[in-house]
Amino acid sequence: MPEVKESPRVAVYGLGAMGLEIVRILYRRHARVVAGIVRPGSDKDGRDLGDLAGVPGLTFPARGDASQALHEAAPDIVVVTVSTYLDDTQFGIFSTAVRAGAHVITLAEEMLYPFATDNPLARELDTLAREHGVTVTGTGHQDAYWVNLISVLAGSTHDLGGIEGRLAWNVDDFGPALAEQQRVGTTTEDFSRWLAGTERPPSFTHYSLYALAAAVGLTPDGTAECVTEPVLAERDIHSKALGTTVRSGTLLGYTDTDTLRTKEGITLSVSSQGKVYDEHETDYNEWRVTDGSGKPTLHLRNSDLSTAHTTCASLVNRIPDVIAARPGIVTVDQLPQLRYWTGLHLA
Amino acid sequence: MPEVKESPRVAVYGLGAMGLEIVRILYRRHARVVAGIVRPGSDKDGRDLGDLAGVPGLTFPARGDASQALHEAAPDIVVVTVSTYLDDTQFGIFSTAVRAGAHVITLAEEMLYPFATDNPLARELDTLAREHGVTVTGTGHQDAYWVNLISVLAGSTHDLGGIEGRLAWNVDDFGPALAEQQRVGTTTEDFSRWLAGTERPPSFTHYSLYALAAAVGLTPDGTAECVTEPVLAERDIHSKALGTTVRSGTLLGYTDTDTLRTKEGITLSVSSQGKVYDEHETDYNEWRVTDGSGKPTLHLRNSDLSTAHTTCASLVNRIPDVIAARPGIVTVDQLPQLRYWTGLHLA
Repeated sequence: MPEVKESPRVAVYGLGAMGLEIVRILYRRHARVVAGIVRPGSDKDGRDLGDLAGVPGLTFPARGDASQALHEAAPDIVVVTVSTYLDDTQFGIFSTAVRAGAHVITLAEEMLYPFATDNPLARELDTLAREHGVTVTGTGHQDAYWVNLISVLAGSTHDLGGIEGRLAWNVDDFGPALAEQQRVGTTTEDFSRWLAGTERPPSFTHYSLYALAAAVGLTPDGTAECVTEPVLAERDIHSKALGTTVRSGTLLGYTDTDTLRTKEGITLSVSSQGKVYDEHETDYNEWRVTDGSGKPTLHLRNSDLSTAHTTCASLVNRIPDVIAARPGIVTVDQLPQLRYWTGLHLA
Repeated sequence: MPEVKESPRVAVYGLGAMGLEIVRILYRRHARVVAGIVRPGSDKDGRDLGDLAGVPGLTFPARGDASQALHEAAPDIVVVTVSTYLDDTQFGIFSTAVRAGAHVITLAEEMLYPFATDNPLARELDTLAREHGVTVTGTGHQDAYWVNLISVLAGSTHDLGGIEGRLAWNVDDFGPALAEQQRVGTTTEDFSRWLAGTERPPSFTHYSLYALAAAVGLTPDGTAECVTEPVLAERDIHSKALGTTVRSGTLLGYTDTDTLRTKEGITLSVSSQGKVYDEHETDYNEWRVTDGSGKPTLHLRNSDLSTAHTTCASLVNRIPDVIAARPGIVTVDQLPQLRYWTGLHLA
């Protein structure tokens, strides 16, 4: 396992909106950004990382030849911001970094708790990381707002019956790929057809509820469900991410309500609304803890959230924890409490 | 150090409002309450603990002979809910428990971070606890709401400039001793005279800011200040704790605003309003994180808090962490993340 250093060498794999924001944060905090990786042949391949991120001083090109670039740059850790699920492509990216001897930290939502499903790639990646003595961890906004703030909150009750979350995020903050994934602009008929299809992977919050259960110390009983409902535009609203207008009566996005039951009889649930916002709307994150009789006892709300900010910042602050962790896939419930990385404080 | 067990033997030292609530929680959660200790000669001395707490099944007397009672009951841990500051009396209580070979967990506010001041009793107690192989920790509402939720929140920003808290608690929830300490019912002249006196000890939040600094990973630069302002009744309001009416124009309580500066240039502050509530008021806890330019970036609010509930519940949930910790005084920033004690889940 590479030695923990004050200022580790960081590569960023995936230079979309999130990847470039992470490059900017790392640069401002005087971390050593040593490589930027893009899809081979993408229009960013070969362009200067500093130009792409809008910061001076990073005068080396983004590269499409990931394996070669990582071996040359020898990062301590690779930040991966490519996609959501642990599929074959994502596995290929992670294993390229692992084989280059680097830790991996990622925003891929499935990686927050990849053992929530029976994904054989999670076991394979865990084995590979252990063999190479490196750690692989998924983090992001969820780490603070859907898992660790909530497990601390639940630590202040003496009779835990359930935990219920409600949250909203603006599809327009995350680029066109996610807007399409949230079915923005489709009709209710299209949505129903899509929903009835069998291919839909678990929602983001599916993974976070498993991580929350682990952080609280609960054992899922094997029954998890997700109810998905469309959110319709009541008037024409412009989508920045898509660059088009969402017509009244079509989808601004949808709400997933995930529920996870545990052997302790404690039920965890979260309603996540991802949609194109109207003018006055802002992100929020709200949770209630109920007691054994279902009565609300504790409450926490984060208003005026900038989910894109907290997503990238939480990842950056987790870098020293991931470097110091044991080899293998290590989920955030097994890391120390999330905190500001004072070693890289912006002076 | 005693072995960590699923259901440790717990003694409760101090059977006021908080102590008896903790007895009830422990009883409902099937912990083993093995002794209740009161001041020798108090009117509770010799009365059945079950009668005092209003629970059946604890059919043994509260005892005034602490040392003898603790040696007989052999608790793994002693819960101490007697007073706020680490003075000679409190030191005597802690050392009686430590000499009986028991860990100590306490609501004494100074013990949240006793090294915030140059209190020689803290060093002496630390040495004594190490000699006896036991841990001494201060916890309570502050652990979750003034320290750990806030350090997690700060872990989701990339540019930490400051942390500001605002909170309110109802003096009437905590009995007559605290109501007198909050100067309830006194005149502004009395208050000014009292404030000008030199004997006033640091506020509760003084200690919590040092604990927060430690949890975030910051180093206080030696400049801490507290500004105290009276909160006056605008009409006659009944105080349950004192059993009298607070006359219009006299004090409902006061607000302490503590500020702590750090070597990293990050300023921590908290305004704590402790007063007798009017009918519509409830406890809240609200924090903002600002960036290096002073702009607010993150927000957290807990509404409709029951501070008495969270005070006692946080202490109970911390018991396994304290039993498992290294010997000596261990502050909450050094413990694992606060979480629900599932080993004692109320089924």
